[in-house]
Amino acid sequence: MTTALTETLQPETPEAADEVKHVNHLDGIFSPKSIAVLGVTPTPNTVPYDIFYNILSSGFRGTVYPVAPGKRSICAVRAYRYVLDIEDDIDQAVIVFPADVVDRALEQCGKKGIKSAIVISAGFREVGPKGVKREQRLKDICKEYGISMIGPNCLGVLNTDPNVLLNASFARKMPSAGRIAFLSQSGALCTAVLDYARAKRIGFSKFVSFGNKAGATEIELFDYLHNDDQTDIILLYLEELRNGRGLIEAARRITRGDNPKPILAIKSGRTAQGADAAASHTGSLAGEDAVCDAVFQEAGIIRVGSIEELFNTAILYTYQPMPAGDRLGIVTNAGGPGVMATDAAIYAGLSVPRLTDATINRLKGPLPAAANMKNPVDVIGDARVDRYTAALEAVLEDSNIDQALVILTPQSMTDIDAIAKGMCDIHEKAKKPVSCSFMGAADVKSGIDLLQKSRIPHYVLPEWACEAMSNIQQIRRWREQPDAELQPLPVDRRAVEAVIDQAPAGYLDENDALTVLDAYGLPVPPYKLCTTPDEAVEFAEQIGYPVVLRVVSPQIIHKSEAKGVTLNLIDADAVRGAFNRMQRHIAEVLPEAEIHGMLVRGMIPDGYEVILGAKRDPIFGPTLMFGLGGIYVSLFKDVTFGLAPVDQATAARMVHQVKACQLLKGARGGVRADIESIQECLVRVGQLISDFDRIIELDVNPLIAGSAEVGNAVADVRIRLSD
Amino acid sequence: MTTALTETLQPETPEAADEVKHVNHLDGIFSPKSIAVLGVTPTPNTVPYDIFYNILSSGFRGTVYPVAPGKRSICAVRAYRYVLDIEDDIDQAVIVFPADVVDRALEQCGKKGIKSAIVISAGFREVGPKGVKREQRLKDICKEYGISMIGPNCLGVLNTDPNVLLNASFARKMPSAGRIAFLSQSGALCTAVLDYARAKRIGFSKFVSFGNKAGATEIELFDYLHNDDQTDIILLYLEELRNGRGLIEAARRITRGDNPKPILAIKSGRTAQGADAAASHTGSLAGEDAVCDAVFQEAGIIRVGSIEELFNTAILYTYQPMPAGDRLGIVTNAGGPGVMATDAAIYAGLSVPRLTDATINRLKGPLPAAANMKNPVDVIGDARVDRYTAALEAVLEDSNIDQALVILTPQSMTDIDAIAKGMCDIHEKAKKPVSCSFMGAADVKSGIDLLQKSRIPHYVLPEWACEAMSNIQQIRRWREQPDAELQPLPVDRRAVEAVIDQAPAGYLDENDALTVLDAYGLPVPPYKLCTTPDEAVEFAEQIGYPVVLRVVSPQIIHKSEAKGVTLNLIDADAVRGAFNRMQRHIAEVLPEAEIHGMLVRGMIPDGYEVILGAKRDPIFGPTLMFGLGGIYVSLFKDVTFGLAPVDQATAARMVHQVKACQLLKGARGGVRADIESIQECLVRVGQLISDFDRIIELDVNPLIAGSAEVGNAVADVRIRLSD
Repeated sequence: MTTALTETLQPETPEAADEVKHVNHLDGIFSPKSIAVLGVTPTPNTVPYDIFYNILSSGFRGTVYPVAPGKRSICAVRAYRYVLDIEDDIDQAVIVFPADVVDRALEQCGKKGIKSAIVISAGFREVGPKGVKREQRLKDICKEYGISMIGPNCLGVLNTDPNVLLNASFARKMPSAGRIAFLSQSGALCTAVLDYARAKRIGFSKFVSFGNKAGATEIELFDYLHNDDQTDIILLYLEELRNGRGLIEAARRITRGDNPKPILAIKSGRTAQGADAAASHTGSLAGEDAVCDAVFQEAGIIRVGSIEELFNTAILYTYQPMPAGDRLGIVTNAGGPGVMATDAAIYAGLSVPRLTDATINRLKGPLPAAANMKNPVDVIGDARVDRYTAALEAVLEDSNIDQALVILTPQSMTDIDAIAKGMCDIHEKAKKPVSCSFMGAADVKSGIDLLQKSRIPHYVLPEWACEAMSNIQQIRRWREQPDAELQPLPVDRRAVEAVIDQAPAGYLDENDALTVLDAYGLPVPPYKLCTTPDEAVEFAEQIGYPVVLRVVSPQIIHKSEAKGVTLNLIDADAVRGAFNRMQRHIAEVLPEAEIHGMLVRGMIPDGYEVILGAKRDPIFGPTLMFGLGGIYVSLFKDVTFGLAPVDQATAARMVHQVKACQLLKGARGGVRADIESIQECLVRVGQLISDFDRIIELDVNPLIAGSAEVGNAVADVRIRLSD
Repeated sequence: MTTALTETLQPETPEAADEVKHVNHLDGIFSPKSIAVLGVTPTPNTVPYDIFYNILSSGFRGTVYPVAPGKRSICAVRAYRYVLDIEDDIDQAVIVFPADVVDRALEQCGKKGIKSAIVISAGFREVGPKGVKREQRLKDICKEYGISMIGPNCLGVLNTDPNVLLNASFARKMPSAGRIAFLSQSGALCTAVLDYARAKRIGFSKFVSFGNKAGATEIELFDYLHNDDQTDIILLYLEELRNGRGLIEAARRITRGDNPKPILAIKSGRTAQGADAAASHTGSLAGEDAVCDAVFQEAGIIRVGSIEELFNTAILYTYQPMPAGDRLGIVTNAGGPGVMATDAAIYAGLSVPRLTDATINRLKGPLPAAANMKNPVDVIGDARVDRYTAALEAVLEDSNIDQALVILTPQSMTDIDAIAKGMCDIHEKAKKPVSCSFMGAADVKSGIDLLQKSRIPHYVLPEWACEAMSNIQQIRRWREQPDAELQPLPVDRRAVEAVIDQAPAGYLDENDALTVLDAYGLPVPPYKLCTTPDEAVEFAEQIGYPVVLRVVSPQIIHKSEAKGVTLNLIDADAVRGAFNRMQRHIAEVLPEAEIHGMLVRGMIPDGYEVILGAKRDPIFGPTLMFGLGGIYVSLFKDVTFGLAPVDQATAARMVHQVKACQLLKGARGGVRADIESIQECLVRVGQLISDFDRIIELDVNPLIAGSAEVGNAVADVRIRLSD
């Protein structure tokens, strides 16, 4: 049995995801009334046996049928030779046959009318070309018979719903019930997560290992879980994104609106070498990971760094109410950890405000004079439950405080269990979130267990509590953020079609590229493709000197190197001379170059160099990039990303989140750029790449950004088309 | 009993630390033959009782005497009314009397000839002015009688040396013996740390809570532990630094050289609010924390972020050999965690190289075909101990690998304990470091315990292992770094003395400031303070036009606002005119201003704007700052710090670690600055502030840095003197 996911998968096109719609029969995956397990063997401690045994012994409310050719019974349950032999209707098939016969088993399931299947067996695309073929065969069968499939190459599915109680997996034990759904692309990670969660009394609603996701992917599972009454939050471990756009759209539906459920995700393969280890993509992904970050943010998916952070956040969300704001009150019996927690809170973007005078006065009664009554409230090392209770109650009732963190170190006077019970009592009545950090391990164990039983989030380190609280703030802000209002700006779409429809793959020539930008309302200064010196002079006279001449030829990409550019032409003679000289020179050195003419352009006024980039990402579709030209982009990586198309608000975020934006605002005595019109340019570039699928790359580099009087001007542009 | 450290302490002058030398009698603190406990009471579960009971019951090899006025015995041990009544010699006093009588008790100890004392009692400087006075009294007594003191306001001292076995603290249990010394300013944190460490089987050599550090500070303790055979590594939790320079010097002695011992430190109060909570300093410390970072780095102190990271690193260091390099081999039975570990390793600055072909071939025997034989080595989910053993042995013997990380997830076939034993067997013979991450909690518990018993570092998350390995690399690089070679450059010290000795507190005038820089060899272009127009013209003719005139007056700080600067004077008439005009203007608008004359300076050529800053930090003494002028410093905080004086190598590090240094190297088509001479300027500024205590601030802002042909030039400077 292999659950490794170090496969070499090619990213699929977004259309591929639409191939099969699985959502209809996911109910049969999670809540079947009858299950056939195909390929059961009678040997304990093997996957084929364990799966059947787990379903049988997990308290499953329905009926389970073993399909085990040649066996009379498994675990004393009557066995069948073929699934077609079963006399009753079957909702779900779990297939554990060796890889080479899974297709035949699945086909029989189709014939039997089974609409939901979990394929545990490994040996598919993760093992190379032969497996890829096998996997395609499963997809075809699913399509033919309308089967919703989980897997292959997965651990299986668990559902703690008391009306179902399904452990269709080879995980050793059933987790307890809870409000958290966990989805994982790695089966092996699931076993660690279940073990970890059990020790912390963390329960699950649904638990899914989706393996190679040849059938249902995280996207269909999201939609299913969105409607699942027993799930409040969705956790995801992902190694490989295939349909980023679909993921984002699903996430946006789910994480906002009437029935919002947060999605927290670990996306591994952040570094090129990590991605290499995942081997789910090829080539350098370092840049794309930054895009992934930005895009998750726009989709409302909280990207976390570790399993610990994933669950630390999930328990805070599911156990506690949503805080009204970011203001944290700390109660501690130890100064040092109080200081460390304050540091961590500030780093995490929370605030640790002073308590009101009323609260401070109120604390003077129960606390000794040496106690710190501000925030953190230090109840001092010899504090027992009475002081903790008085302090936490006062802090929670303080109007300056949105949530509380209680820190305890086990000192000789500390009545740990009593304090834990005291915190539980307050927490039951409290309308604000309470978290605890009982520091240490052995001495505090029983106290921690009391907290966990009462569903008070407990953190080994106060720093982790702050990290989780910070993620909750992100969830809150995301929900409060107004909806994006995408109102397409009026553009001349036809003009762009005229250029693009007849252009070959590769870079557009400069004239065409400028025509495209112009049609989409970007500030392109006057330009004209001229075929004779006279035409060039005429246009130059019209726009006024000085002008620039630039050769236009599909064979000449680097114009300067080919001496295809002449700057600062101040009169008709200069234009004429340059036109003839350049034409002659190119005819001599590049006789094969086909010259379309000379582009006449005005000189661009001074201003800030701004880069507007657009790229069609194979995973996320059209994305936008913004930054200031020069060292800011290259050295400080001071850029922001967005998902095209963008509305004005997103464009504003992209521009303002760049640190060098201070320059545009006139820092250091410079002129103030017209930031609103830069934002509009970003919106227009986003609209352009979204409207035309053939544009795979577009760089306005630079856009010269001037003051509101001077305005912006496209100085240079490159547009690359696909076939 | 209070152990809170939320006191309001004033930073002391460095000299204060020299007041009492405690190092002589620290042996009496850690390894006494006889102890008197002063202030014992007969009530269990109180600090005064617990301390005595802990010494008595910890297996202490010497003799302990309770001093308990009015009691015949404590725990059946004969008690004394006064310490002076004890008939035998006493090495150590532990004082647990209430704060108001501690001074008298300590004085009696002095009279008794006791040279080492631990004052547990609280109620000193942490409670305000009255306590500060009490604490000063203790210091005075220590000085008078030559007593080495730990505390007051502390948890106490533990020594696990089997020849001593001392628990002179109110910590509940004695930790096991180990090679780690732990020093903490927070007593409350100690209890959490001891509890945490016990659960992870982490042992200690010495464990010290030093509280208010009125006697011995971390510095004396460092020196003691440096010579302690039983200590390999020193861990420190610090809230408040008083003598930063002393700390650094001690750390440099200890962390390098013949008998190097790493120091890992948590310094809390990183944020202004955290510092406020610590209340150990006043005012904004946000900037100074960056200095603290840099200075710790220069001192070889590894600054860590959490208790978890502190011990994660300490166990790796004490349990395992030092790796030869940063190349990590990963063995895992789960693809997902392998990817996450790879990501984490790369982020932490480690490398995860491909294994040699020989190793890959060797792995083909024991591992199944579906296994990944590169790095991470994925032994696949159904791996049992044989595969793990074969893989780890091969990885450790690979010449591309310096250290290994073994990841395990508890799958149904996984024989966890057998694998743990297998890893222990290999580890015993291995010459390269091995770490493990058995992921989960309950199922892996017994396996983890086996690893911990065999002193294999275990990490809940693979990410933490990588973080610890990265810290070990820092230790290794620090030791390999060549010694700083501080060779003072030839300077004209007398000339500076002549200026500074007669200057009042505050800013030097421009002429004096330039004189000072000039005397220390900084590139000051020609200048002269002229009192008449004729003198100005004469000097201008001598240096060549154009020149600048700048008024010099102690009353005029902002010259431009007072129209006290005229630029670009191109001939004698212009100089004469400007001189008279400025003089007239100032006499009119600022009649009280005393005009020393006009400074005539040449125009400064073009170049990069570079800032050389120097500041006398109250904690760290003279520090240096380097950055590129403009947005790089203000917006990107792209600056580096150093501890003055600096050698060439440190100056080079400071210049090169600034990201914008790429500009100086000629990135983006600019000229290449003469970086070596900028470094020399930094060395000279460092030498200057180190040589003259009265300089509290010095900013060369900007130094104009040109190419090697053009050279550098001081454009502007401000020097501030203390009284």
